[in-house]
Amino acid sequence: MNTYPRRLAYGMIGGGIGAFIGDVHRRAIALDGLAEIVAGCFSRDAQKNATTGLAWRVPDDRVYPDFESMAAAEAQRDDGIDFAVVVTPNETHHRIVKTFLEHGIHVACDKPLATTVAQADELAFLAADRNLKMLVTYPNVGFPIVKHARQMIASGEIGAVRMVMAEYPQGWQAPTAVESNAVVTDRSHLRWRMNPESQGPSGSVGDIGTHAENLVSYVTGCRVESVSAVLRAFGPNALIDNNASVNAHLSGGAVCHFWTSQIAVGYRNALRIRVIGEKGSIEWFGETPDLLTFTPLGGATMTLSKGTPDLHPHAQAFGRIPPGHPEGTYEGFANIYHAFAADVENTVGASGIGGGDARPDADAVRDDYPHVEEAARSVRFIHACVESSKRDAAWVRLDEV
Amino acid sequence: MNTYPRRLAYGMIGGGIGAFIGDVHRRAIALDGLAEIVAGCFSRDAQKNATTGLAWRVPDDRVYPDFESMAAAEAQRDDGIDFAVVVTPNETHHRIVKTFLEHGIHVACDKPLATTVAQADELAFLAADRNLKMLVTYPNVGFPIVKHARQMIASGEIGAVRMVMAEYPQGWQAPTAVESNAVVTDRSHLRWRMNPESQGPSGSVGDIGTHAENLVSYVTGCRVESVSAVLRAFGPNALIDNNASVNAHLSGGAVCHFWTSQIAVGYRNALRIRVIGEKGSIEWFGETPDLLTFTPLGGATMTLSKGTPDLHPHAQAFGRIPPGHPEGTYEGFANIYHAFAADVENTVGASGIGGGDARPDADAVRDDYPHVEEAARSVRFIHACVESSKRDAAWVRLDEV
Amino acid sequence: MNTYPRRLAYGMIGGGIGAFIGDVHRRAIALDGLAEIVAGCFSRDAQKNATTGLAWRVPDDRVYPDFESMAAAEAQRDDGIDFAVVVTPNETHHRIVKTFLEHGIHVACDKPLATTVAQADELAFLAADRNLKMLVTYPNVGFPIVKHARQMIASGEIGAVRMVMAEYPQGWQAPTAVESNAVVTDRSHLRWRMNPESQGPSGSVGDIGTHAENLVSYVTGCRVESVSAVLRAFGPNALIDNNASVNAHLSGGAVCHFWTSQIAVGYRNALRIRVIGEKGSIEWFGETPDLLTFTPLGGATMTLSKGTPDLHPHAQAFGRIPPGHPEGTYEGFANIYHAFAADVENTVGASGIGGGDARPDADAVRDDYPHVEEAARSVRFIHACVESSKRDAAWVRLDEV
Amino acid sequence: MNTYPRRLAYGMIGGGIGAFIGDVHRRAIALDGLAEIVAGCFSRDAQKNATTGLAWRVPDDRVYPDFESMAAAEAQRDDGIDFAVVVTPNETHHRIVKTFLEHGIHVACDKPLATTVAQADELAFLAADRNLKMLVTYPNVGFPIVKHARQMIASGEIGAVRMVMAEYPQGWQAPTAVESNAVVTDRSHLRWRMNPESQGPSGSVGDIGTHAENLVSYVTGCRVESVSAVLRAFGPNALIDNNASVNAHLSGGAVCHFWTSQIAVGYRNALRIRVIGEKGSIEWFGETPDLLTFTPLGGATMTLSKGTPDLHPHAQAFGRIPPGHPEGTYEGFANIYHAFAADVENTVGASGIGGGDARPDADAVRDDYPHVEEAARSVRFIHACVESSKRDAAWVRLDEV
Repeated sequence: MNTYPRRLAYGMIGGGIGAFIGDVHRRAIALDGLAEIVAGCFSRDAQKNATTGLAWRVPDDRVYPDFESMAAAEAQRDDGIDFAVVVTPNETHHRIVKTFLEHGIHVACDKPLATTVAQADELAFLAADRNLKMLVTYPNVGFPIVKHARQMIASGEIGAVRMVMAEYPQGWQAPTAVESNAVVTDRSHLRWRMNPESQGPSGSVGDIGTHAENLVSYVTGCRVESVSAVLRAFGPNALIDNNASVNAHLSGGAVCHFWTSQIAVGYRNALRIRVIGEKGSIEWFGETPDLLTFTPLGGATMTLSKGTPDLHPHAQAFGRIPPGHPEGTYEGFANIYHAFAADVENTVGASGIGGGDARPDADAVRDDYPHVEEAARSVRFIHACVESSKRDAAWVRLDEV
Repeated sequence: MNTYPRRLAYGMIGGGIGAFIGDVHRRAIALDGLAEIVAGCFSRDAQKNATTGLAWRVPDDRVYPDFESMAAAEAQRDDGIDFAVVVTPNETHHRIVKTFLEHGIHVACDKPLATTVAQADELAFLAADRNLKMLVTYPNVGFPIVKHARQMIASGEIGAVRMVMAEYPQGWQAPTAVESNAVVTDRSHLRWRMNPESQGPSGSVGDIGTHAENLVSYVTGCRVESVSAVLRAFGPNALIDNNASVNAHLSGGAVCHFWTSQIAVGYRNALRIRVIGEKGSIEWFGETPDLLTFTPLGGATMTLSKGTPDLHPHAQAFGRIPPGHPEGTYEGFANIYHAFAADVENTVGASGIGGGDARPDADAVRDDYPHVEEAARSVRFIHACVESSKRDAAWVRLDEV
Repeated sequence: MNTYPRRLAYGMIGGGIGAFIGDVHRRAIALDGLAEIVAGCFSRDAQKNATTGLAWRVPDDRVYPDFESMAAAEAQRDDGIDFAVVVTPNETHHRIVKTFLEHGIHVACDKPLATTVAQADELAFLAADRNLKMLVTYPNVGFPIVKHARQMIASGEIGAVRMVMAEYPQGWQAPTAVESNAVVTDRSHLRWRMNPESQGPSGSVGDIGTHAENLVSYVTGCRVESVSAVLRAFGPNALIDNNASVNAHLSGGAVCHFWTSQIAVGYRNALRIRVIGEKGSIEWFGETPDLLTFTPLGGATMTLSKGTPDLHPHAQAFGRIPPGHPEGTYEGFANIYHAFAADVENTVGASGIGGGDARPDADAVRDDYPHVEEAARSVRFIHACVESSKRDAAWVRLDEV
Repeated sequence: MNTYPRRLAYGMIGGGIGAFIGDVHRRAIALDGLAEIVAGCFSRDAQKNATTGLAWRVPDDRVYPDFESMAAAEAQRDDGIDFAVVVTPNETHHRIVKTFLEHGIHVACDKPLATTVAQADELAFLAADRNLKMLVTYPNVGFPIVKHARQMIASGEIGAVRMVMAEYPQGWQAPTAVESNAVVTDRSHLRWRMNPESQGPSGSVGDIGTHAENLVSYVTGCRVESVSAVLRAFGPNALIDNNASVNAHLSGGAVCHFWTSQIAVGYRNALRIRVIGEKGSIEWFGETPDLLTFTPLGGATMTLSKGTPDLHPHAQAFGRIPPGHPEGTYEGFANIYHAFAADVENTVGASGIGGGDARPDADAVRDDYPHVEEAARSVRFIHACVESSKRDAAWVRLDEV
């Protein structure tokens, strides 16, 4: 008789049917067969909680009414979950994550990690202290060609970084009439992102600026040290910023500009990063995430693609299909989950990732995912921007918020 | 105790670990939780067959040494597979598909359906005769914005179709030295595609031209009636065409040109279709599959995107995430599988697709996938091109091959 | 007192105020100060003829009522024109050009050279026989980066040419309602292009296909040997083709496809050529004429630009301003005129081109312009396409029309 | 005998053979036949001065050794120049322009107008006081589609402006080894731009940022009120900034970010402006200056083009040739000169612009060119950026420098 390798099991907090990001997490995990969902506390609405559990075939005794009882019960089971996936509104991340960590359960949490710096630091401390793995889902760093860009810069292919232009404009919040993302405006995940009580102190910086900051740090290897930020809440009903123009100093001496916007009519989800080095430059656009533009000093501008033989092997390891066969949002998520799952498996003694199929050895990918320390740094970035803007764009250091 | 909706079960023929397309099928089905893999005959190599079964947690008594015994055994089981997925080299499709159909099992088969017209017609007849569902995996028609394009043309938004430019250049077979797709050249799926014994009588038309033909038919609603084809086998080792330039007459009076190439240095997977109508035109490019370019007569060129509120509702139903969050190859495959699975469920009495989550009612999508009749038409297209080229580009009617 | 280098003098036939192409010729010549307009027969309308002469400061005794008297008078003058510029409807080219050649005057003529093969051949013979210089204005070959592409191919950088895709779609003739080029539809130059009496036997091939054919020949160094053509006259009022899909054999063994269209809604002036060689490929698009895309076998796709230091020196010689400062239609025309003027100056003993300013030595550019022999070949291309289409796309050799 | 309309005459200061920008001015004026060059003081090098005069057929008694004698002599002549074109290094603009204005001669001056605010204001006052016309050559505002963008915003088509992203990166100064613009690095016009004595206090802001600022003001109708600037001089030899990241407040309440760079490897001449309004957005890129991207709230992104019938008539008036026939740098310059020449002609009583040919009535274009007042504002912008950067990005108001 077969003895299958044990497959990781997870539970989800949030992500009731109709939720946007919880569904993305579930599908990304399923795509590579990384783990099975076996428990959940999907909604505070009991009916929705039950229906979601049924849809995903979660045993009804593992569909919990609240996250506290879930954490306690799962921690007691021999076959308890290996990790919890937290996909609730930002404001609740801290207490949910903390609870699971305190019960010794690894955690994957949607970004941003928390709404205050103290909360974020506490979670980072707690995970380190208990030796627990934490993934915070900044999926853009999961794309193979983004990993190649990081390797290029780390190995000096563009020389010292001088100027970074990072932008993340979206148009869904342009506050009048119908607009191009209106299809999603009646969903709760958009409503709570406009409300400081659930979203935290910043709208555009907190929701998407943090993606840009994480990407800049990952690709360039430079940290944001201080910011001079102009945040604006356009429209009569805006309670928190929906547009930000931020100058920043990076470690190593580069200048960086961030533009984040949720009122940028005509923009879908237009995360873009451009890095100017002393002997080369790169550009990456999140809506064509398989491609990277690279210009060496004195040479022509080139389009690099995931899947080509000249990619750094570590980057190569994260692709599934040949060049020109697009991989997108789900695959980006799947890639960071893949590395996280490899890390968790290594810790808990499972070994079943991905059917072994088109994926590389787990060792090759294990450590390359957004950790809690980076995510805590991103929370500092949010708060530094908010603080700077309040003080009329005065420079604020991230270490001092 | 919960009574879960029954989930569809499938078995796979071909797709041993390391195979390209079998893996794509498995992941696409997993992404939406459409069906579980429970049986297989993955490889003629017994060891590889066993290992693949283990990786995908297929019970070892359902890992079969040959497809005939698999079909017989699964047809006998109460919990036998609902459908078989055939992902073997083209030459073997006919006898495998035929066997499963004869055992009353629905089939999903990779394209092209068969290597002769007679075989293709036989399978189409057999499926219709037994009232069995067949999916042939032309995944490009699965993209929401492609479905929107079809709806636009069907509803007259660009008027009568006049000229179609369809092209599918790839560069992987450029026969000298290292080239941009060389990462995959050591894989068996590429070797057998260059060999007429496994591939059939045409290389570029059979492998990728058939995608273009299927897409033209789907989007325009016009059939290819006759072709005047120039096929070429470039390079010293080419046994079958790797480049084709084909003029065609479409039903309804339009002219169409197909260019297919596997020696097009610099092209990844560059399927592109442009349709010129009397009062508008559209363009779609398979490497950015969420986008469609549309120009109405007298107006500006517009970029339409999946996920925007103005999409035809049927097209909208096939998207998962908002505009600017790219969906790619896996999602294209998943979409045609979704419609097929809905059709099979309707027939077999299961009802569990997708957890109900971010997907529409199954009724909305049920019939919209590439059927065996269209796939048989594509086989005629291949043979008509081969025949025409042999006769120095004389016109050959598809009805007469 | 200064002795200025003598500046070339020219006269124009056609090009009355409001004419499209005559104005382009005049401005292109003026841009580089290549020659002064001193004579003309601008219109059969006496008033318009006079007004145009006045506007361009042509002495009134050199504004002629007909081209015959102009040729005769200018040939007699000591300060007679060095060359004639013929910018009349196609049908009239032959008799006007012939007249000036017979009077020993060099000629620049708009394309196509003539409406019959016999006429074209006669003009080519006549020019050669009298040792007179003739420019036929195919301006796309004037762009520096196009010249670089030619040099690349000539020096083997992409290896043997295998497949060429050449297309020139425009939308101005889409025959219903207002459309995107309608701004020009009331101009006479468009009316006569739709009338076979003034345009010749082909619409789209004669007007724009000939540009594509000339460009293919120039860039690849291969001649079109035979064609299999599908010409269509879409719309109720079309008297000659406005869309063509043409397969062709090139000398050297490559396959080529031409698409020309005047009913392609959404296309402005979209001349595009793609050349696939055995070890590289290039692409050039006429609406961004400073740029060239190049992919070497095994390498990334690169964007090359006019003005960069790695251009072939001969190509470099035709640019004026640095990369990123666009040069367009006027500069393309000016470049072929520049080479022609250098050739004429060399013959007539003038030496004043361009003020010597930002332009290279005349010797470097002298021979590189479209000559009458190439233009006569283009007329054969037109007629071969027309003949092939009449015979249901049978192959027709250019040498046999 | 003919009485020709009097054609404007001009003289040039600077622009000796080999100079970059002087040559552009001369060709742009020649393209449309706007004026004849009849005098000059082209170089302090007597030989070069004479040679340039000879090349451009300037009578030798009107080739002057210094600008003072030129101004004095031309002011005395009955047939003296109508306007002077000043194309010398920035530092010299003030005293040259002042001299010609004081002699009652209209002036076209390259940007920036002057190197100090006081100088700029003095020139603006002087021109107004003497009722003399001044053009300062910001040519990007000359493109028809840019004028259309201005009209769109002025007429409320995108609503109130909220966010502007303006950038002008170039790569020519990336200070090591060969790079993509190195072809021009040995030219004097680049050397003096890196030297504060000739360039003024800012490199990238002074040379190209001022183009961006002028374009923002022109297109949006909003003025820059204050700036918070981070200027950097990258590389061991940089004496003045070659990269700047500037936040700005615009009149009307919008936020604006400027990025200017001369060390941006991979960028040719990449001026780009994006304007986000409350109900629409636009984007324009200077390397494809005929095109404009426009997205209305709730609609698809559209590409608008010069030459299409839906352009505002005033914008339409500035194009020459149909859509898809590119017009570039020379035509942009020609357009602002066209409006300026119309204004000067109106003042001096000439009337010969452009041969009347493909150009509109002079009245339609007369006032639409960059005036001295706007150019003086741009000098304030430069100085405010320099001042802000010195004070660690503190806000500096343009009215207070």
